[in-house]
Amino acid sequence: MSEDVRKNFASDNVTPASAEILEALMRGNQGNVSSYGEDHYTEQLAKKFGEVFETELAVFPIATGTATNSLALSAIVRPYGSVICDHSAHIENDEGGAPEFFTSGAKISTLPSPQGRMSPEALQEAIKRNKEKGVLSPPFQALSLTQSTEWGTVYPIKTISALSDIAHQNGLTVHMDGARLGNAINHLNCSPAETTWKAGIDILSFGGTKAGTMAAEALIVFINERTKPFLSAIPHLIKRSGHLWSKHRFLSLQLLALLEDTLWLKNCAHANKMAKLLVAELKRHPGAQMPFDCESNEVFVVLPETLLDNLENEGFSFYRYPTPGGVPGKLVRFVTSFYTRTKDVEALIEAINK
Amino acid sequence: MSEDVRKNFASDNVTPASAEILEALMRGNQGNVSSYGEDHYTEQLAKKFGEVFETELAVFPIATGTATNSLALSAIVRPYGSVICDHSAHIENDEGGAPEFFTSGAKISTLPSPQGRMSPEALQEAIKRNKEKGVLSPPFQALSLTQSTEWGTVYPIKTISALSDIAHQNGLTVHMDGARLGNAINHLNCSPAETTWKAGIDILSFGGTKAGTMAAEALIVFINERTKPFLSAIPHLIKRSGHLWSKHRFLSLQLLALLEDTLWLKNCAHANKMAKLLVAELKRHPGAQMPFDCESNEVFVVLPETLLDNLENEGFSFYRYPTPGGVPGKLVRFVTSFYTRTKDVEALIEAINK
Amino acid sequence: MSEDVRKNFASDNVTPASAEILEALMRGNQGNVSSYGEDHYTEQLAKKFGEVFETELAVFPIATGTATNSLALSAIVRPYGSVICDHSAHIENDEGGAPEFFTSGAKISTLPSPQGRMSPEALQEAIKRNKEKGVLSPPFQALSLTQSTEWGTVYPIKTISALSDIAHQNGLTVHMDGARLGNAINHLNCSPAETTWKAGIDILSFGGTKAGTMAAEALIVFINERTKPFLSAIPHLIKRSGHLWSKHRFLSLQLLALLEDTLWLKNCAHANKMAKLLVAELKRHPGAQMPFDCESNEVFVVLPETLLDNLENEGFSFYRYPTPGGVPGKLVRFVTSFYTRTKDVEALIEAINK
Amino acid sequence: MSEDVRKNFASDNVTPASAEILEALMRGNQGNVSSYGEDHYTEQLAKKFGEVFETELAVFPIATGTATNSLALSAIVRPYGSVICDHSAHIENDEGGAPEFFTSGAKISTLPSPQGRMSPEALQEAIKRNKEKGVLSPPFQALSLTQSTEWGTVYPIKTISALSDIAHQNGLTVHMDGARLGNAINHLNCSPAETTWKAGIDILSFGGTKAGTMAAEALIVFINERTKPFLSAIPHLIKRSGHLWSKHRFLSLQLLALLEDTLWLKNCAHANKMAKLLVAELKRHPGAQMPFDCESNEVFVVLPETLLDNLENEGFSFYRYPTPGGVPGKLVRFVTSFYTRTKDVEALIEAINK
Repeated sequence: MSEDVRKNFASDNVTPASAEILEALMRGNQGNVSSYGEDHYTEQLAKKFGEVFETELAVFPIATGTATNSLALSAIVRPYGSVICDHSAHIENDEGGAPEFFTSGAKISTLPSPQGRMSPEALQEAIKRNKEKGVLSPPFQALSLTQSTEWGTVYPIKTISALSDIAHQNGLTVHMDGARLGNAINHLNCSPAETTWKAGIDILSFGGTKAGTMAAEALIVFINERTKPFLSAIPHLIKRSGHLWSKHRFLSLQLLALLEDTLWLKNCAHANKMAKLLVAELKRHPGAQMPFDCESNEVFVVLPETLLDNLENEGFSFYRYPTPGGVPGKLVRFVTSFYTRTKDVEALIEAINK
Repeated sequence: MSEDVRKNFASDNVTPASAEILEALMRGNQGNVSSYGEDHYTEQLAKKFGEVFETELAVFPIATGTATNSLALSAIVRPYGSVICDHSAHIENDEGGAPEFFTSGAKISTLPSPQGRMSPEALQEAIKRNKEKGVLSPPFQALSLTQSTEWGTVYPIKTISALSDIAHQNGLTVHMDGARLGNAINHLNCSPAETTWKAGIDILSFGGTKAGTMAAEALIVFINERTKPFLSAIPHLIKRSGHLWSKHRFLSLQLLALLEDTLWLKNCAHANKMAKLLVAELKRHPGAQMPFDCESNEVFVVLPETLLDNLENEGFSFYRYPTPGGVPGKLVRFVTSFYTRTKDVEALIEAINK
Repeated sequence: MSEDVRKNFASDNVTPASAEILEALMRGNQGNVSSYGEDHYTEQLAKKFGEVFETELAVFPIATGTATNSLALSAIVRPYGSVICDHSAHIENDEGGAPEFFTSGAKISTLPSPQGRMSPEALQEAIKRNKEKGVLSPPFQALSLTQSTEWGTVYPIKTISALSDIAHQNGLTVHMDGARLGNAINHLNCSPAETTWKAGIDILSFGGTKAGTMAAEALIVFINERTKPFLSAIPHLIKRSGHLWSKHRFLSLQLLALLEDTLWLKNCAHANKMAKLLVAELKRHPGAQMPFDCESNEVFVVLPETLLDNLENEGFSFYRYPTPGGVPGKLVRFVTSFYTRTKDVEALIEAINK
Repeated sequence: MSEDVRKNFASDNVTPASAEILEALMRGNQGNVSSYGEDHYTEQLAKKFGEVFETELAVFPIATGTATNSLALSAIVRPYGSVICDHSAHIENDEGGAPEFFTSGAKISTLPSPQGRMSPEALQEAIKRNKEKGVLSPPFQALSLTQSTEWGTVYPIKTISALSDIAHQNGLTVHMDGARLGNAINHLNCSPAETTWKAGIDILSFGGTKAGTMAAEALIVFINERTKPFLSAIPHLIKRSGHLWSKHRFLSLQLLALLEDTLWLKNCAHANKMAKLLVAELKRHPGAQMPFDCESNEVFVVLPETLLDNLENEGFSFYRYPTPGGVPGKLVRFVTSFYTRTKDVEALIEAINK
C-alpha cells in the first residue's frame, strides 16, 4: 500500500482494524485460558455492553455481520415462519442466502421502502394480509429493521417505536441490523439505548467490523418477556453454525477494545464527517443527483458514466448499482470510514470535478 | 496469568496464538484492500499450500474447525445422503450438530472403532448394507477420517489408502478431519502429501488453531475428477454460513504465518514431544492404565478418582470421559501443545506421583 | 350436499374425484403386491406417460401439488442456490414455504409479470445481475414457469421456448408447474409434448388433482443431459419427505385412470368451457372489469363489493384478492372444473345479474 | 393376483386396504366441500379420536407413517436439538433421513435396546451425559418410543410411564411411534388411553395404513401444558411439507372408517392371531431360533439359509436381516396382517416343515 492517497471507497470493510484492536489482541495473547467463551475476557462483555446500553442484556461475540444477523433471526423465527423486512435489507440482498440457511428455510418477506425505511402503515397492511393467508403463507414471526439503512438514511426513533409496537402487538419479535448503528447514533445524537431497546428492539446485531474491529460483531439480546424464552438456544445455534471460537478470548478482546473510551462512536463520527464533506461537494456538482439523504457514512449519487469510468481509471474504487431505466447516468456508492482522511475525500472530489 | 506453571491440560485450544501469528496480523494491518478474499494475501495462499502439499489444490480459510469440517461435508454430501465415519469422530460427538446443519440434515453414520481407527473390512460391510437398504437409508456419499484420531492414535498411511480405495470404488468422496494433522505427520515422519491426497484424501480440514493460529483453519480441496464438480459451490457455502470475513486478509495472514518456516510442524512436533514425556512417566505409575497408544499430543489414561480430585484441587485442568462400568478409576485426557513447557509437564507428573 | 346447484367456485380442488378414479381404486384393491412402488401398476406408469408425452421420461407419483413442485425444485436447485420465477407463482405465494423447506433454504427470486407471464428480456437482465453479485446472492440454478399461469393466462409456446433457451444457456434447469397443464393444452390446442419438453421444459409437475384425481400428481422428468445427473436422487428425496406411500399402488392407479381415454384432457376441456361461459356473461356486465385474459379455468374479475357480499349471502364461494388502491371494487376469482355444470354457471350469472 | 394362497409375508403394507375404507371413499365422493381440511368430515375426526382415547386431543391426518413420525418430531424438537430413541427405531433406520429432514437437522441419538425396548436406567444415564456435554452435543428435547417395537415386542405400560417420567423431569416431550399401536393394545389387553397419554405420551403417530387404510395415519397431540405451545405450528408444518391434501376429505374419510366399529382393533387382533399361529409352529421346528418374544404381528426367526432359499423359490416373500457373526442361519421376519388368512399361514408352515 504505497499509495499516498487511499482511493478505495467501495465499502467500510476494505479498511484495516483500528490500531487499538490489534494492540488488545497482543496484550491478551498470553497464558492458557478456558476455551469456548469460558474465559475472563468474555466474562466482562455483558457488563460493558450493559453499561453502554443501560439495561440488562446478553452478548454473544460473532466474527461476521452475516452470521450475526442470521443467528439473530434463527433465534426468533421458526423454520416454517417468516421475517418481514424492507426490500433493500442486507438480509434479503447481500448475504448469499444466509438467513434462509440459519433459519432452516424461513421466508424473507419484503416491503417496498423508497428511502430504505419501512412505513408503519405498510407493515400493518402486510401483517393483515399474511394472517388472512393462513397456512398458505409462512406466518410472520419477526420484523427486521436496518439502522442506518442500506441507502444511507437513518430511521427516526419514533418510526422505530411505531414499527416495533405494531410488531409486538402481532406477536413478532423485533431485530435490528446495526451494522452501521454507530453512524446512526451519531446522526441522531441519541444514546445507544434510545434507538434500540427503548424503541422496542428485542435483539440487535451490533456492528463492530465497519466501526473498527478486525472481525467481531456482537449479537445482543435485550432481556424481556419476549426474548427470555429463546435465550438458552443461542449458544447452541452459535456452536452448531461453527461460530464458537475455541480461542474465544480473541473475539471478546476486540469488542472490549472497541467499547473502550467509546472508540466505536468516535470512529463512526469520523466516518460520518467524511461523508458529509463529500456530500457537500457533490451537491455543487451539476451532473450529480442524490436520490437519498446522506445521514450516515454511505454516499449514493447518480453520476455520468464517463465520469465514473475516469474515476476508475485513476484508481478509485466504488460500487455500481443497477440504475432504473431512463435515468441519465449510473447510481454509485462511496463509503467513508474511520480510516478515511480528509485528504482522501479531497482527492476524490478533485477527480470528480476534473 | 501470573502462574509460574501452566496447569491447563484440558485441550490444545486453551493456549494463546503463536507470537508469529499476531506479528503477521500487525504487519498486515495497514492500507485498504479489497474485502471478501479479493486481497493479495489471500491470493498467495493456494501457492503456499500447493508447495506444502506438492499438488494442485484450492484453499479456503475458515475461522473454526467445526465450520471447516462441516463446510467440507456440505460440499460432498447432499442433504439426503450420509457420511460414514468412526464412532469416536469429532463430527459425530463434539460439534453440536454442525455437520447436520451445514449438510441440511444429512445423516452421520458411524462404525465402531476401538482405537479410533475404522477398519477397511467394517467399511466394506457397512457400504454393502447401506446399498441393500435402498431408499430406507440415506445413501453413503462421503467417508470422513480423523488424523490424528480422537483417541490420540494415528492411522498408518496404508490403512488410509485402503479405506479411500473402498470409498472411491463405491462413489464416496473422502474427507479428512486434520485438526491435529501436524501431530500425525510428526508421528508418521511422512510428508503432508503422503498422509493426505496420495493416500486418497479428496478434501481436507487442515488444522491451524491447535497448531498455533488465533482462529484460522484451511479447507483444502485437492483437485481431481471427484472434487472438480463441487469446487464452485464452496465460496457460496462459505458466504451462506457467515464464514466469509469481510476483512478477509486477517484470516489469510494467520495461515501464511503458520506455514512460514514450517511453524505448524515445529509446533506440532513440540506438542508431541511433551506428550511423550508425560506418557513415559505415566507408564511407570502403578495406578495408571492407558487404553490407547499415544501417537500424537493427546494422552488418555485411567487414573484413580482420588488422584484426579487432588489434581483438580491443585489447579490442574483436564477432561473426564465416561468410563465403562467395572473399570476402577476414571478415563481422562491430558493434552499438550506448542505452548506446553517441559516444566509444565514435570509439574503435572510430580503432582500425579505425589 | 343436498344443494341443487353447486355454488362453490373457490377453487378446482373443492370437487370430488372423477368417478373413474375411485372405480380404479376399487378394482386394484385386492391381493398383496410389493410396497413402496415395486408393484405392477406403478411399472406401467412410465410407459403410459411416455406415450402421452411422446418421449423418454421418468414418472414419480406424489399425492399433492405442493410436494410435487417442491420435490422438483429440490432435485434441480442446491440449498445455496436460487430458483427464479414470476412474482405470482404458486411456489412463491401459496405453498407455505414448502419450496424453501424441500430445497433446504434455496432462495425463491421473483420477477414482476403483469399477466402472470415472465418476459425473456426481464429474465435475461435478472440473470446478468445475479451473476454480478457473486457470492452475495444465491446463484440462479433453476427457472420455474407456471402453465396455465396463476392469473388464468397461458404462455404461448414460443415464449416458453425463449425463456428455456435463456435458462439453459446460463446453466439453469427448467421446471414447469403444470397444476393446470391440461387447461393450457386445451387453450393452445397443442400436444402435451409441444408445451413441455419440446419447448425446453426439463422437469414437470403434472397436475392430477385439479384435473380429476383424488390426490395424485406426477413428477415427470424428461430424460436429457441436464436431467440425467439428478435422476437417481429423486427416490431418496421422495422417501425423505414422507411422500413414498407404502401401499403405492393407490397413487399409481389414480394416474393410470386419469390418462385412460384422455380423461384428464376431457376434464380440463370441460372446465375451460365452463369458464368461457362465465366470462362471456361477465363481459356484458357494466360493473365488471377483467384485468387478465381468461385462457384457462380461472376467471378473475373486479366486481363491486356490495354485489360480492350479496353473492356470499346467497351461498356462493369464491376467493378475494387484495385490490390495488384506487380501484373501485374488489378483485375476485371464480374457478370452474370438470365437476361444474352449465346450470351451476348459469345460477352464478343469474345471481351476479340480479 | 390369481394365487390361491397369499405368500407375501414381507410386511403388513403389501396388503390392499380394508374394504370398509374404500367404501367410505366412494360414499364421500360427491359434492363440493371446502378444501385443505375445512370440510365436515375432517371436523368429526377430533371428536371420534377423542372418544377412542378418552381425552382432549388434536388430530391431523397424514398419508404416510414416515411423514407422521417426522412431523411429530419437527413439532417437538428444534433444529439444534436431539431426539433420543432406541437403536432399532424406525426413525433411525428406515425412514431415509426423514426425521433429519423435517427437523432441519436435529440429531437422532440412540440407545442400545436388546429387545427393542429402551431401559429407564439407560435413558437417565444418557440424559446426564448429554447435559454434561453442553453445546458440544445437541440437547435432548424429545424421547421417541415405538409401540409395538421394531422387534415385535411390546412395552409394558409401566415401562412407558417410567421412561416418560424421566423424560418429562428433564424437559423432554414424549413421542410414540404407533405404526403398530393396535397390535400392542391387543397384546396388552388395555385401552388406547392406557398405553399412550395415561402413560405419559404427549404426541402419537397413530398407525392407520398397517391396520387397514389405503394411506392414512393420524398425528395425535394430547392436549397438556407441554403440547399446547407447539399446537399452532403443526398446520404450518404439514402444509410446508406438502402433506396437506387439497381434497382433504379423502384422508379423513379413511380414518373415520377405520375407527368405525373399532375396525382398527379388530384388524390388529386378527393379525396378532395369525402371528401366534405361526410362532406356535416355529417353536416346534428344530432349526428355528426366535431371538425376540413375538407380542404383535411380526415374527422374527433365525432359519437355515437353504430353507429360506427354498421358501423364496416357492414364492414366499419375507425380509432378511444382517445376522450377527457366528450364528448358523439367517434372521428373517414374517409379518401377518388383517389380510392374512389361516390357510396362508398354514401354507407357509407346510413349506417350512418340508
